[in-house]
Amino acid sequence: MASADVQPSGTTIRARIGTMSELRRDPTTDSWVLIAPERNRRPRDRRHTSEKTVRTLCFDPACPFCPGNESKLPGIIAEMPSSFQPGWRTRVVPNKFPAVGQDVAPCTQGPAFYKTAAGHGHHEVIIESPRHDHDLTTMPEDGVRDVLATCRSRYAVLMTERAVRAVIVFRNRGIAAGASLWHPHSQMIALETVPPRMQAWQVAMLSYYQARDRCVLCDVIAYEQGDGSRVVNENGAFVTVVPFAATAPCEMWLLPKRHQADFGDLQNGEIELLAIALRDALVRLEATLDNPPYNYVIDTAANSESGAPHLHWRLRIVPQLTVPAGFELASGMSINPSLPEQDAVTLRSFRQVLRETGA
Amino acid sequence: MASADVQPSGTTIRARIGTMSELRRDPTTDSWVLIAPERNRRPRDRRHTSEKTVRTLCFDPACPFCPGNESKLPGIIAEMPSSFQPGWRTRVVPNKFPAVGQDVAPCTQGPAFYKTAAGHGHHEVIIESPRHDHDLTTMPEDGVRDVLATCRSRYAVLMTERAVRAVIVFRNRGIAAGASLWHPHSQMIALETVPPRMQAWQVAMLSYYQARDRCVLCDVIAYEQGDGSRVVNENGAFVTVVPFAATAPCEMWLLPKRHQADFGDLQNGEIELLAIALRDALVRLEATLDNPPYNYVIDTAANSESGAPHLHWRLRIVPQLTVPAGFELASGMSINPSLPEQDAVTLRSFRQVLRETGA
Repeated sequence: MASADVQPSGTTIRARIGTMSELRRDPTTDSWVLIAPERNRRPRDRRHTSEKTVRTLCFDPACPFCPGNESKLPGIIAEMPSSFQPGWRTRVVPNKFPAVGQDVAPCTQGPAFYKTAAGHGHHEVIIESPRHDHDLTTMPEDGVRDVLATCRSRYAVLMTERAVRAVIVFRNRGIAAGASLWHPHSQMIALETVPPRMQAWQVAMLSYYQARDRCVLCDVIAYEQGDGSRVVNENGAFVTVVPFAATAPCEMWLLPKRHQADFGDLQNGEIELLAIALRDALVRLEATLDNPPYNYVIDTAANSESGAPHLHWRLRIVPQLTVPAGFELASGMSINPSLPEQDAVTLRSFRQVLRETGA
Repeated sequence: MASADVQPSGTTIRARIGTMSELRRDPTTDSWVLIAPERNRRPRDRRHTSEKTVRTLCFDPACPFCPGNESKLPGIIAEMPSSFQPGWRTRVVPNKFPAVGQDVAPCTQGPAFYKTAAGHGHHEVIIESPRHDHDLTTMPEDGVRDVLATCRSRYAVLMTERAVRAVIVFRNRGIAAGASLWHPHSQMIALETVPPRMQAWQVAMLSYYQARDRCVLCDVIAYEQGDGSRVVNENGAFVTVVPFAATAPCEMWLLPKRHQADFGDLQNGEIELLAIALRDALVRLEATLDNPPYNYVIDTAANSESGAPHLHWRLRIVPQLTVPAGFELASGMSINPSLPEQDAVTLRSFRQVLRETGA
């Protein structure tokens, strides 16, 4: 039989001096990451996609998010009006292809053997600027503040909706990060269940709190500020770090220094500082990795856990440079081919943050 | 329970109502998936990459896996010799850019605040054919059998290595699925820890077993055979299904009908039938989705759990057609824009499986 014919060869060479590889645990999710800088040398490991070059027009007649094309939208939920001229600064619209909805029908009659739940919820898009060619790094800082204020406002509304148990805020930038439209936008999905990662996050943070009577992210902030090797920048309200167990090259966390479980707890003065921190982190990211595709998400408390002493929200930026493959699929672990401490050195080195003021 | 209606229930419902969305639980991992066929209509939701067209040469002088280019390899671990001519049918070599290794150094000195573990293990590549232009769907069926026999043989060897706790077998096909070389190959990674997904899988299957005194995958096989709506094909030893909570369009599981916890339990006669089932599934997949990038992985028992009555190994094929984005990152749930029952109808419809015999 064929299997018996696999014969050991005498020419095995295993010497690999200088190779580094380490498993690191993220204490906020109890997940593990394989840090393997050696993998960075693979032929096609990184997607060299620069996302900015194709976005040149300030208005695209085919874009449903551009002013004047409202007939292409399924509706308008809310607007932040402009103070200087007729029009709007940000606009909230229903997602035209919602992942969840209010009037969706289940796909099946619910076979008894399997568990199902209706895909009920809300799926909204925040159009971040009337300008098609803007982005969070090229719009003025008060534009970023408007985007975050709109997110917080809709977040607060959705959290009061009947049956909503969790609200997910996220931004996909670039095709390789899942964006299907260029016009700058964020998204929010309100769910009637607590999704698995939010559950795992809450369990891991509760477990830390029960053992030490302290919030793990407050401890992470204190540790990283003391250590310094992974801190990218900080201001009066936020510290930006490359996490110890970063899942991707140049992953960054924006951590509120004041303990707060819920993104909705963010105060007006803190929004200004979050806008500064976010724009700073994204400018550094674009300079370091040549405008990479990225996602950012806000990890925050589920509805029932609002105000919990063990939870602490964060904004997590994850560049999409490597392709998750069979190993990640089978193991549930990410492989990060970058050393987080090295990424932090590079990100810190961009000290001149652009502060364009013109619109 | 079993429906006499051959048509999947989803199809009839879809005809009546426009928007559908449903959360489905995978009982083998206790994970949830959002089935949202409406998302399929998004502008750029699918990567239309046909991977086969670029692979034309039977020999590539630059390819380290082609015969004659052995100087580009870090070594040769094992070979399955050819019965007819000098040379080899399959070859096992060390990965040149290993994710884990035997002599790796840790990246850090192990800060007390965070947990780390050395990235120790083995990372091997199975070169599936001397021919650069072959693939599992174009090589003869006994070629597929040779590949699987080599995998099982190396799997058995690695499971006996000191300190190895889990062996992951996987295949990445196409750049979008993480492959960095065209020459047909699979990979194996042996780890000294049990990775998180394997742990979650073992916990979920144990929980089912403790409640019912039955293996969940044995029950899944019986249910799917009775229901029929998600079965793609079957032979004497394997049944191929689109899982109820499929995480991606045309995901397929190859399930051994005989209860066996461990891929290493596979018997010689079963290898032949697994080869037939695997080639059949991949031919259907390529015909349905125009040669998509895909990964397949073998979910199997960790070393300590070999022979466990609650575990049952499977081969899981996951096409890489959609881009995981902010929602998946924040929620830990996949969004599948295809209805599994509809995918099964399409996959079943390719009844003429090519059986090329020439090399």
